[in-house]
Amino acid sequence: MTGKSPKESFTIMNELVLPNDTNMLNNLMGGRLLHWMDIAAAISGQKHCNRIVVTASVDNVSFKHSIKLGDVVTIEAKVSRAFNTSVEVRLDVWAQNIPSGTRVKSNEAYYTFVALDKDGYKIGVPELVPETDEDIELYNGALRRRQLRLVLGGKMKADEATELKALFVGKG
Amino acid sequence: MTGKSPKESFTIMNELVLPNDTNMLNNLMGGRLLHWMDIAAAISGQKHCNRIVVTASVDNVSFKHSIKLGDVVTIEAKVSRAFNTSVEVRLDVWAQNIPSGTRVKSNEAYYTFVALDKDGYKIGVPELVPETDEDIELYNGALRRRQLRLVLGGKMKADEATELKALFVGKG
Amino acid sequence: MTGKSPKESFTIMNELVLPNDTNMLNNLMGGRLLHWMDIAAAISGQKHCNRIVVTASVDNVSFKHSIKLGDVVTIEAKVSRAFNTSVEVRLDVWAQNIPSGTRVKSNEAYYTFVALDKDGYKIGVPELVPETDEDIELYNGALRRRQLRLVLGGKMKADEATELKALFVGKG
Amino acid sequence: MTGKSPKESFTIMNELVLPNDTNMLNNLMGGRLLHWMDIAAAISGQKHCNRIVVTASVDNVSFKHSIKLGDVVTIEAKVSRAFNTSVEVRLDVWAQNIPSGTRVKSNEAYYTFVALDKDGYKIGVPELVPETDEDIELYNGALRRRQLRLVLGGKMKADEATELKALFVGKG
Amino acid sequence: MTGKSPKESFTIMNELVLPNDTNMLNNLMGGRLLHWMDIAAAISGQKHCNRIVVTASVDNVSFKHSIKLGDVVTIEAKVSRAFNTSVEVRLDVWAQNIPSGTRVKSNEAYYTFVALDKDGYKIGVPELVPETDEDIELYNGALRRRQLRLVLGGKMKADEATELKALFVGKG
Amino acid sequence: MTGKSPKESFTIMNELVLPNDTNMLNNLMGGRLLHWMDIAAAISGQKHCNRIVVTASVDNVSFKHSIKLGDVVTIEAKVSRAFNTSVEVRLDVWAQNIPSGTRVKSNEAYYTFVALDKDGYKIGVPELVPETDEDIELYNGALRRRQLRLVLGGKMKADEATELKALFVGKG
Repeated sequence: MTGKSPKESFTIMNELVLPNDTNMLNNLMGGRLLHWMDIAAAISGQKHCNRIVVTASVDNVSFKHSIKLGDVVTIEAKVSRAFNTSVEVRLDVWAQNIPSGTRVKSNEAYYTFVALDKDGYKIGVPELVPETDEDIELYNGALRRRQLRLVLGGKMKADEATELKALFVGKG
Repeated sequence: MTGKSPKESFTIMNELVLPNDTNMLNNLMGGRLLHWMDIAAAISGQKHCNRIVVTASVDNVSFKHSIKLGDVVTIEAKVSRAFNTSVEVRLDVWAQNIPSGTRVKSNEAYYTFVALDKDGYKIGVPELVPETDEDIELYNGALRRRQLRLVLGGKMKADEATELKALFVGKG
Repeated sequence: MTGKSPKESFTIMNELVLPNDTNMLNNLMGGRLLHWMDIAAAISGQKHCNRIVVTASVDNVSFKHSIKLGDVVTIEAKVSRAFNTSVEVRLDVWAQNIPSGTRVKSNEAYYTFVALDKDGYKIGVPELVPETDEDIELYNGALRRRQLRLVLGGKMKADEATELKALFVGKG
Repeated sequence: MTGKSPKESFTIMNELVLPNDTNMLNNLMGGRLLHWMDIAAAISGQKHCNRIVVTASVDNVSFKHSIKLGDVVTIEAKVSRAFNTSVEVRLDVWAQNIPSGTRVKSNEAYYTFVALDKDGYKIGVPELVPETDEDIELYNGALRRRQLRLVLGGKMKADEATELKALFVGKG
Repeated sequence: MTGKSPKESFTIMNELVLPNDTNMLNNLMGGRLLHWMDIAAAISGQKHCNRIVVTASVDNVSFKHSIKLGDVVTIEAKVSRAFNTSVEVRLDVWAQNIPSGTRVKSNEAYYTFVALDKDGYKIGVPELVPETDEDIELYNGALRRRQLRLVLGGKMKADEATELKALFVGKG
Repeated sequence: MTGKSPKESFTIMNELVLPNDTNMLNNLMGGRLLHWMDIAAAISGQKHCNRIVVTASVDNVSFKHSIKLGDVVTIEAKVSRAFNTSVEVRLDVWAQNIPSGTRVKSNEAYYTFVALDKDGYKIGVPELVPETDEDIELYNGALRRRQLRLVLGGKMKADEATELKALFVGKG
């Protein structure tokens, strides 16, 4: 199983914000966006693994700006690191109001997926081979994010999370 | 504006997992669950604030078990702490397969919401007054989780996150 | 097969009224509410029977108040009586407008469900053992409602519906 | 305001049963059918009234046969009687499995609707002038069904429901 | 396999335009209408073939008038000609605004479907036997439309499309 | 109003085929695909016009291969030519089965859109300036396709469609 580059799993999704996606103030509901992001990330994860993949976790997501009815939401997803039987997918989300010509970054996120065979058992996935500087930075940060998931999920003690401590000595 | 207890915002949602909620292995898709959780949490946040609320962030969520087509998903939500114009909502999610009589904890999560007035401006919210031991534990942990959100969102330097460091010296 | 109390099948569903649930006057459409009630009642019926259940009938439902876009609909369901292979589920529905602080009873209803085994055949269900005074009243009224269903469905002659006649001598 | 015949409000709806409309046994869920029936009946009521109409009640509905995934559901609706500001709509529902060539009557039902003006106030509706023998039979039965709704809704005492008593002396 | 008349496959669908079906100007989106037309046409095709049918093509469709939120869309479909293993279905679409009493023809269209057996293989279909003058005109025009599909799909050379040339010498 | 290149309106949409998108044979329904294509094309048209756009027509679409449940559908859209107040959008659609590693071209299509101002009136749009050889070929073919639309829509006589005749003398 040879490695793959992030651009092999790169996936773009565009969605139009329709009435049922919005709340009483005509803002896109956060849960709908998380749902779209999950589908975009799953497609990206599938492309890397050539397998059915299922969502294992989503990291902290902050919604910085409200997205309005009629806006176009653009979601870009690519695998940022592969582990034994799972992948971390990086997402970048923009909202565009076309008549007014504005386009803002809504948020970034990381979803992880487990690859499964046809019978639903975990199965190994190809390595991720980063290419660009941005790829490498995302790849390197993945260990730290993984430790944070394990600590928050109660599966690793905080004082064993050596990579994570970098968060508290270097930049976030 | 007098304070409110967590039980005043306590909200239960039950959903039946239907075909369109599932992937090729008949498992509930993570994004659909995040969407349901957002609605349950928003109702809970609204009850506390008596305002329209919009999703500001979702903390790390891990999906421990697959949830199957036909299962009943039970989501319980309550406000765990109020800040000036926002609330943190704690969610507990179970999946129940009724014919086989199994019921498993799927996951826990924290969503935060900002309260808005009719014109869409941020507005103050009532204090949260914890009552039970569990309420108090959730209330106390909220500062640490908030610092983590700020650090991950690039709005606080890691070395200023005094509460968060507790994560790395005590338990998670 | 030991009997079960109504509280073992008690189920709460909360739904937020979204744009697609409403008509041109921003009122929740009756059919959407009937659909939600069916799902809540089916979950309740499943809990009592530990079986897949299918809707056999819905009794007369009156919608007293309009429910508006953005309202929270709360549906409470519990089994009110079990027959050989079917259960009657009692529903209470409220609509809450959270920013204005109003909460009104929308309606009450009874749905009946038949329990099926894995191959789709009818199968026996546990008895319902009423506990509270309200439970007992609902339990006793179930025979009368059942006769009304049978008479309206052409399966019982009106003059044999001895229980139903109570409707015309006492209160409804 | 001149009267209208039932055929002026006659409405046919055909729907294909898709996966999300079905339960674990691939049967159409009763609530989904009630929802479709509400839309078909509302269109019929609108045609008679030339107004927006909102659902006031649904009478007892019994589902005699299961309807399967892939079946075609045909709903026929027409106004059976008009009152001051409301109409009763009669529905006939069939399920057709086209490859196997079967077509069965699923159920009959009555929905009532209130007509509203643009500001949401009740407004008078045209009379219903029955034409065929079947029209006349439905028209005559409408008083009895209305009394049953009022008695069940607690708005009429059973012993004042003179028409309804016909149910217990003649046929249902 | 005896032939069938167009009225044996005649199918009416009525749909109410709901918020999620519309764009920012409260107009029905063209894609939603194409989707409804596909379902109506598929039901009609199924009725003729007594088989599962799948969409093979849709001919040029022009939307002449905008259809608004709250309008009733009426779609009439019937088979206009059968070929070996496929049928052409003719659609007529109207939009009705009931409170204002307007009803306009929205568009006409032709969809073609292929009939499949249970294993997904193409299978022969009954002949279409036109009855009325309109039936015969639609039947005769079907060859020309078929040649246009084949030429546009690159499966027939334009100069072999003898029927199609009638379009350029006679009426459209 | 300066002209724009096709790449400025280039839009990619990826969708996962879910159960409700499919028929009894687990094939994506043609109408659902037409709906997705309409949204992708509308986003592309909006990007070119910086206006709300509404669907005016869809040209003949042929579905060459069945698309299965679980496949990823990729839709690419870009403006191929602008007219006074409308644009023609070219679509290319692929279906990818990721676990089996197959990717097939499903179909090509042209949708046209009219640009509207905030009050719903037609408004002028920027010119399309083709850049690549493929752009130029699509641009040149647009006149012929437009004449076909006008002839089929009864707005132009066939013998005036000078460009269209190229279809019958040159290649399709």
